[in-house]
Amino acid sequence: MAVQTVASTTDSTVDLGPAAALSCRECGHRVPLGPVFACEECFGPLEIAYDFSSYDAGELRKRIEAGPANIWRYAPLLPVPADVADKPNLNPGWTKLVKADNLARELGVTGGLYVKDDSGNPTHSFKDRVVAQALEAARAFGFTTLSCSSTGNLAGAVGAAAARAGLRSCVFIPHDLEQGKVVMAAVYGGELVGIEGTYDDVNRFCSELIGDPAGEGWGFVNVNLRPYYAEGSKTLAYEICEQLGWRLPDQIVVPIASGSQLTKIDKGLRELIELGLVEDRPYKIFGAQAEGCSPVSAAFKAGHDVVRPQKPNTIAKSLAIGNPADGPYVLDVARRTGGAVEDVTDEQVVDAIRLLARTEGVFAETAGGVTVGVTRKLIENGVLDPAKTTVVLNTGDGLKTLDAVAGTGPTATIRPTLDSFREAGLA
Amino acid sequence: MAVQTVASTTDSTVDLGPAAALSCRECGHRVPLGPVFACEECFGPLEIAYDFSSYDAGELRKRIEAGPANIWRYAPLLPVPADVADKPNLNPGWTKLVKADNLARELGVTGGLYVKDDSGNPTHSFKDRVVAQALEAARAFGFTTLSCSSTGNLAGAVGAAAARAGLRSCVFIPHDLEQGKVVMAAVYGGELVGIEGTYDDVNRFCSELIGDPAGEGWGFVNVNLRPYYAEGSKTLAYEICEQLGWRLPDQIVVPIASGSQLTKIDKGLRELIELGLVEDRPYKIFGAQAEGCSPVSAAFKAGHDVVRPQKPNTIAKSLAIGNPADGPYVLDVARRTGGAVEDVTDEQVVDAIRLLARTEGVFAETAGGVTVGVTRKLIENGVLDPAKTTVVLNTGDGLKTLDAVAGTGPTATIRPTLDSFREAGLA
Repeated sequence: MAVQTVASTTDSTVDLGPAAALSCRECGHRVPLGPVFACEECFGPLEIAYDFSSYDAGELRKRIEAGPANIWRYAPLLPVPADVADKPNLNPGWTKLVKADNLARELGVTGGLYVKDDSGNPTHSFKDRVVAQALEAARAFGFTTLSCSSTGNLAGAVGAAAARAGLRSCVFIPHDLEQGKVVMAAVYGGELVGIEGTYDDVNRFCSELIGDPAGEGWGFVNVNLRPYYAEGSKTLAYEICEQLGWRLPDQIVVPIASGSQLTKIDKGLRELIELGLVEDRPYKIFGAQAEGCSPVSAAFKAGHDVVRPQKPNTIAKSLAIGNPADGPYVLDVARRTGGAVEDVTDEQVVDAIRLLARTEGVFAETAGGVTVGVTRKLIENGVLDPAKTTVVLNTGDGLKTLDAVAGTGPTATIRPTLDSFREAGLA
Repeated sequence: MAVQTVASTTDSTVDLGPAAALSCRECGHRVPLGPVFACEECFGPLEIAYDFSSYDAGELRKRIEAGPANIWRYAPLLPVPADVADKPNLNPGWTKLVKADNLARELGVTGGLYVKDDSGNPTHSFKDRVVAQALEAARAFGFTTLSCSSTGNLAGAVGAAAARAGLRSCVFIPHDLEQGKVVMAAVYGGELVGIEGTYDDVNRFCSELIGDPAGEGWGFVNVNLRPYYAEGSKTLAYEICEQLGWRLPDQIVVPIASGSQLTKIDKGLRELIELGLVEDRPYKIFGAQAEGCSPVSAAFKAGHDVVRPQKPNTIAKSLAIGNPADGPYVLDVARRTGGAVEDVTDEQVVDAIRLLARTEGVFAETAGGVTVGVTRKLIENGVLDPAKTTVVLNTGDGLKTLDAVAGTGPTATIRPTLDSFREAGLA
């Protein structure tokens, strides 16, 4: 096996703040912090283990509230050095938690409905949160090139973050990607390499490259830096609770691609409880998929513990991972918290994008249509309680998936006269 | 003249916070607050006159700093009621002031270079700031429909703001607008009316509609609500100074469309001085245009006080106003502060978009390419002092003007093998 997956050296000089070690999610085996992602004992996924033992809840809360209006207010809870805010990065996060009263009325929610709108991030998706963590890990490990395989949001987030940080970037994409996404990925001036093959071919090639001398000094944000990268999603949980007044929501609806985001939101919520920053009471996490790529939803409904891969066919391309790595962990979280996993058709996705736009003025990408559509379906099916406080995630921007609503046009076309205006019934 | 331009009634019940009256910019004639935009005496433009007499600098500063992370922290300085933050609106503003050290190095700026990045607003342009003011005026005057003529950013900002506020919206656009802009304008579910004619025809029709019974109850944000609307640009000045630590920048580079934004930024800076929130010291304001629509730049260079209209022909469509209403006032401000007005070619605009993206990870729309390009030109010409603190505005998002950089593509295309990777010289 050419891929370097296990820690080969101990680097005790790495300063990533409260991050103490990497720990295997399956067997608990610990290894020192390093650019590795799989356990040397059981090949389970590695994640960050923290040392939060010195924190006092009151002091921590004050420190967070006095911090900057971005994710670095939570630096004490992330695998980053204490001076992270002074380093050049895109400073993502602290996006709006929109009180969605109009949408609540349409959906019959009475307990308070909120949209966590991550389209406000620097490159307009939640990916800026995770890439910002990977960037700090890359700096800590002395990597000089930031890389990833991507079909969209991630490419732009990596290109932009590397540009600002003064690192080289090299992003790999399928050669036949839509022109708009190619432009977004290329404009930041890094290397952008089209691969003659599918997205799977791109991924396979990246794994080969990590194990090759040619890939030395390269940090692949979603491969060898994945344990750090994934932690960025915890900041969604932190922000939601702080913006609710240091309170857990009762219900939260999260999109599922690899499933990592949902499991890390759960991790973030549990940390806040353990640290005493929020009251310990039950919360439910719901996962949302598009019907055309619903392996986790299918497994949930069938009562399975494993996820059977699917071949994606949906307009929600940012969620189109047919074999989601964290699928089984998503099932765990949904079942443990009393949530569920549901899916909606592409037509329902488009309807939900329009619903959110016309009720709250928020133009979501297809992934946001998936979460809003699933929220509606879960309420209709009596699974989600409309009398409870509910937060729905929008993880990206409608400007990036314009094709989904491309049929949208003028409600009328008239001549520039008042007569024509009246004839059209507009007066 | 069918257009209602002058105040016909006194409405003493209107609560728009510190806004005391409308005052003519030309002759100083005052009229009560109302949905009017031109002086009944001399047809000069009306603007808001405030009563700030009760403010203490120290208390005001504390009140602002304790306010929300959006423009409503400055509610005491805007024509809005004190409880504005509790009403449903998009809460724009408090966008990032990016310390642009990489760009500074490229341009040879040593005194500190910042990009005020308004692409972070809810619909990704500064228009959210001005529409938010117009919305409050519309509510105060009892309007039930929010309207505008637009070719792009404004349409989306009005549609989104009206949706969230629960008002009807009706946006007028030329019928042959690009599909992407039509989608953005239509997705919020308001009326979108294509007019068979040019943008000038659209504007003329809107003026007719305001004077007709059919337009009763309609607030046209950039016509009969213009005095309120325009004040939103002051918040750019407030935020820049607060984000610099309550300090005036030495130099600020602002794009010119109608010219309103530049004059209101000047107004905002002068207010901060008069209120004692910043030290009174000189600042210079520079205006930026595209060569293909440079009537103000041409007048500045020729030493004229009047602006000769041009027929626009530039990729910077959001700045393509050939007969800018506030052109003469822009000339005043540039000359009074010791600034200048300059223009750059479309090629320089595209180069500047790429330069900003690759140095700071900020993907600007063409208007941002204009300001960055003009900044570079002004430094090269010795007009802008690189040893002084300089702020450059980016007022919109690159995702909205993808065509400008559409030629951008992969730097290499390879087969998914390490051999192919090496052959391409990427190792």
